[in-house]
Amino acid sequence: MRISSRSEVDSFIVMDVMEAARQVEDAGQSVIHMEVGQPGTAAPAAAREAVANAMEQGPLGYTVALGLPALRARIARLYGEWYDVDLDPGRVVVTAGSSAGFLLSFLSLFDAGQRVGIADPGYPSYRNILRALNLEPVRIEGTLEGRFQPQPADLTHDLDGVLVASPANPTGSMLGREALSNLLEAARANDVAFISDEIYHGLDYAGQRGVTALELTDEAIVINSFSKYFSMTGWRVGWMVVPESHVRTIERLAQNLFICPSHASQIAALGAMDATDELEANRAVYARNRTILLDALTQAGFADIAPPDGAFYIYANIAATGLTSRTFTDRLLREAGVAATPGLDFDKERGHHTVRFSYAGSTEAIQEGAERIARFMQQL
Amino acid sequence: MRISSRSEVDSFIVMDVMEAARQVEDAGQSVIHMEVGQPGTAAPAAAREAVANAMEQGPLGYTVALGLPALRARIARLYGEWYDVDLDPGRVVVTAGSSAGFLLSFLSLFDAGQRVGIADPGYPSYRNILRALNLEPVRIEGTLEGRFQPQPADLTHDLDGVLVASPANPTGSMLGREALSNLLEAARANDVAFISDEIYHGLDYAGQRGVTALELTDEAIVINSFSKYFSMTGWRVGWMVVPESHVRTIERLAQNLFICPSHASQIAALGAMDATDELEANRAVYARNRTILLDALTQAGFADIAPPDGAFYIYANIAATGLTSRTFTDRLLREAGVAATPGLDFDKERGHHTVRFSYAGSTEAIQEGAERIARFMQQL
Repeated sequence: MRISSRSEVDSFIVMDVMEAARQVEDAGQSVIHMEVGQPGTAAPAAAREAVANAMEQGPLGYTVALGLPALRARIARLYGEWYDVDLDPGRVVVTAGSSAGFLLSFLSLFDAGQRVGIADPGYPSYRNILRALNLEPVRIEGTLEGRFQPQPADLTHDLDGVLVASPANPTGSMLGREALSNLLEAARANDVAFISDEIYHGLDYAGQRGVTALELTDEAIVINSFSKYFSMTGWRVGWMVVPESHVRTIERLAQNLFICPSHASQIAALGAMDATDELEANRAVYARNRTILLDALTQAGFADIAPPDGAFYIYANIAATGLTSRTFTDRLLREAGVAATPGLDFDKERGHHTVRFSYAGSTEAIQEGAERIARFMQQL
Repeated sequence: MRISSRSEVDSFIVMDVMEAARQVEDAGQSVIHMEVGQPGTAAPAAAREAVANAMEQGPLGYTVALGLPALRARIARLYGEWYDVDLDPGRVVVTAGSSAGFLLSFLSLFDAGQRVGIADPGYPSYRNILRALNLEPVRIEGTLEGRFQPQPADLTHDLDGVLVASPANPTGSMLGREALSNLLEAARANDVAFISDEIYHGLDYAGQRGVTALELTDEAIVINSFSKYFSMTGWRVGWMVVPESHVRTIERLAQNLFICPSHASQIAALGAMDATDELEANRAVYARNRTILLDALTQAGFADIAPPDGAFYIYANIAATGLTSRTFTDRLLREAGVAATPGLDFDKERGHHTVRFSYAGSTEAIQEGAERIARFMQQL
């Protein structure tokens, strides 16, 4: 049977790493997992209790496509709590993870053939989803000086849209208020639709919360998720905030493409939103892990480390080792028992020389991983 | 901000009906809900127990994109139990409901501009998803004589693909082994990719289980769901069976577009699959409801009732009332307290004269609804 050309997207190299790590573990060797981009913690207890109760109270049938009204209202309230932004719940769209948010954003904004700018390095699914939808991903080459983020000069009228992530994956770098404001202004001036990926918001370590695009404009689509700060990856629930003008369009698309996000996951998400103590305790662990790993990598000679402002990643250059990133991560796994992701997943042109380490695990694991990495680098 | 032309898809009229029904109920009038296409029952007890246990055993993180291996294996086993088909679990793809199955099928098979045949009347999201993905839905006009199903002569080389549903929504009609075999042969001969929507399998009333395309060929994509027979609409979990040649392509698409289906929902689905007694009891209720409603509609003078072989719908012609379907359903709601769906959701050309009734509710509700419909028709 036929196979379409647009489905020929890249697989994730991290999947190969995970499979290799499993084999090494099956052979009896210990592996510290720094390859996976997800918390090791469960959904907050309050989230799990909410689901357990709801399951016994009645059928969890379809919800309306935009999501449970109570959850949309609670998300709107979060913008007051976190950013002092007064948000109309009618602009909140609950989605099946940020993945569904990307699909709905791209489909609602862009017609086939249009061009969307994304920073390299960046989350690989951006470009793969764009391609599957007959859109053209336009590479914006990030630099260390530019925090690996798009710059205002990159947002020309050649683009139909741009997707900006802060904190970013894989770098963890963030945009300050002025930088984000300048990007929004350049996008507005050149009629470039602006999508702000804010799925790592809440996970930042500089003592100052990240800036949401909604503090600066109503004319952007903001994408967020319960996966990271709220520790609910496998539940597949997230949200978008969209301009008033786009609510009905996105509602119709969501009705047809998804019907609704998982009802149980929406109830879990609502429960998670008030579990502040548990979630802040998780964040304190990441903060400790970040310090430990950043010190270790710096001392071990990793270069050009991207500013690790937020998320739970450190992205570093390994060119000085003389190894390509695939060889480096393969040897690091087999010789030192640490799994990490080669940069090729995030930057097909320059990722031969970069590696991403995740510090989302327990402090004990990250401490042990840091020591193993240090020893491995000494022996190289 | 811009809005793409491909996102201008139709909304569901049933949503307007549901909103009108809510207003009528808020005004104090009783409404029998025959408009919604979902069971009134919860997920089986075993499904809910499995989730409750799993939530306390560890984090429900991402699963692999194709789904939990145990669930894929159990689904493969179902094909042995239901159809005596020996299925390789490696061909099973767990999806976020059949909605994700349609997206993955269309993207993996078709490039922009290609033409996919779908029967009218049919599930409205087929054509809306196709349009959003820059594909061209080609209307195949069903007839009562042809059970409102595509005929072999419809599958010409002008088509790149065809989507066939049995039992169908809104008609409930099914394809027998010979009819399905003839369609598959016509598709093969004309190089038309074949997608078989089997989400209502398990819900049939003629004493003989529906035929899956997998009994006849490996060269088709089969889409199924835990929503209907397994009574898990809001959990958003379903599956596909795909040709061996398409597994890797669909895996890569699923990684990028969805990451994975909800982990909790996958665990629930696995729990549901052995809840045979509970599920067969649900089916017995539908069987009773079907008899009650079919008798009532026939006696009340509804014409051209589609063969209600399966699912939980009856689709009937109301042209003799002299009312359009929107007026008919509006008056039926306000004057008789019964919500039903105008045929326009399923057939934009001929749906002015047809109505869909769902009998997925309780027998008590369907009995009361049938009586209200009979009285309404007498007074017309």
